[in-house]
Amino acid sequence: MSVQDPDQKHKKKMQKQKEKVDAHIAAADVERGVVILLTGNGKGKSSSGFGMVLRALGYDQKVGVVQFIKGVQLSGEEIFLKEKATLLPNFEASDFYQMGTGFTWDTQDRSGDIKAAEETWAVAERMLSDPRYHLVLLDELTYMLAYKYLDEQRVLDAIKNRPPEQSVIVTGRGGGSAIQELSDTVSEVKNVKHAYDHHIKARKGVDY
Amino acid sequence: MSVQDPDQKHKKKMQKQKEKVDAHIAAADVERGVVILLTGNGKGKSSSGFGMVLRALGYDQKVGVVQFIKGVQLSGEEIFLKEKATLLPNFEASDFYQMGTGFTWDTQDRSGDIKAAEETWAVAERMLSDPRYHLVLLDELTYMLAYKYLDEQRVLDAIKNRPPEQSVIVTGRGGGSAIQELSDTVSEVKNVKHAYDHHIKARKGVDY
Repeated sequence: MSVQDPDQKHKKKMQKQKEKVDAHIAAADVERGVVILLTGNGKGKSSSGFGMVLRALGYDQKVGVVQFIKGVQLSGEEIFLKEKATLLPNFEASDFYQMGTGFTWDTQDRSGDIKAAEETWAVAERMLSDPRYHLVLLDELTYMLAYKYLDEQRVLDAIKNRPPEQSVIVTGRGGGSAIQELSDTVSEVKNVKHAYDHHIKARKGVDY
Repeated sequence: MSVQDPDQKHKKKMQKQKEKVDAHIAAADVERGVVILLTGNGKGKSSSGFGMVLRALGYDQKVGVVQFIKGVQLSGEEIFLKEKATLLPNFEASDFYQMGTGFTWDTQDRSGDIKAAEETWAVAERMLSDPRYHLVLLDELTYMLAYKYLDEQRVLDAIKNRPPEQSVIVTGRGGGSAIQELSDTVSEVKNVKHAYDHHIKARKGVDY
């Protein structure tokens, strides 16, 4: 068989690739919960958080979800967490909380927003101190930091001092460098293009 | 009340912001299914796809999921789709299919990979021609294009000719410019940092 045979060439290349992958896996020997920050201006941050919720629910892990900002318009994730996830063994109604005041440009009420943010953060803090939670999603938390609706140090401390097996997902644009430093994994979701900019309406089950 | 009052300043700013947002929403008057491409080297592409699956299941929409490459190692999404989603009214076992051969560096078998890719694509094509499906997730499809395991034109045509109300999500690095052009929304998930590079093991419910 010739060295140029594509199947053979492929096999050789893949053997080398496998050695690299295996070495990388072997080197990863630290087991603990992680902090994941999904930031950037593109579509996919919150949905990525909810995808990890789906994965964790697959394993029957205890999951907590706190949504900052959103909650005026009904969403697929809200219906799912209220009506479907509660059918699963480990998910209770109290595992999901929405700030529920809508976007800041809807409320136009800074003092009211701050009060709501603090009440919502109290729910997050409860989850972040409860070792039963394997995964806590803090959806759109970064805006609370950017607007200074929440004390940054208080937020960072609660995440830092969480149970060691607990993972935390934070989503939203911006949020400052401190939360980025604290995170183990940071992905920047960059907008290359968006249907919305071509006048396509937001879709149920995709955008909300 | 002084113009410098922070609550008043905030209110003014938010009123302007709301006008902008409302104008943008009003301009979006096209209603149809969209193609979303989640690409890039960062964490969050597949999980974003599964988050949209969770949203769509919230609305009891019919969802199809085809996973290319993955499927040797058990994953949270696999358990979820096999054991939990099937409890929901609109999800059937046949709505989920995995190529199941593992990564190319595991199989090291180009001809076998191509055969498996074609069989898997046949399942995707069935979903892409079935108007009952509101959302079809083609997880890690881009690699099949990058390796030329699937004919690009055949893939593009099937996506282009799908039912008009159906949305399609494609995930994976790369995949070429044609799939990018065809997509309505493209997000590039950029790796800023990853826990794995600090020797932290992949976590159940987060990474798989």
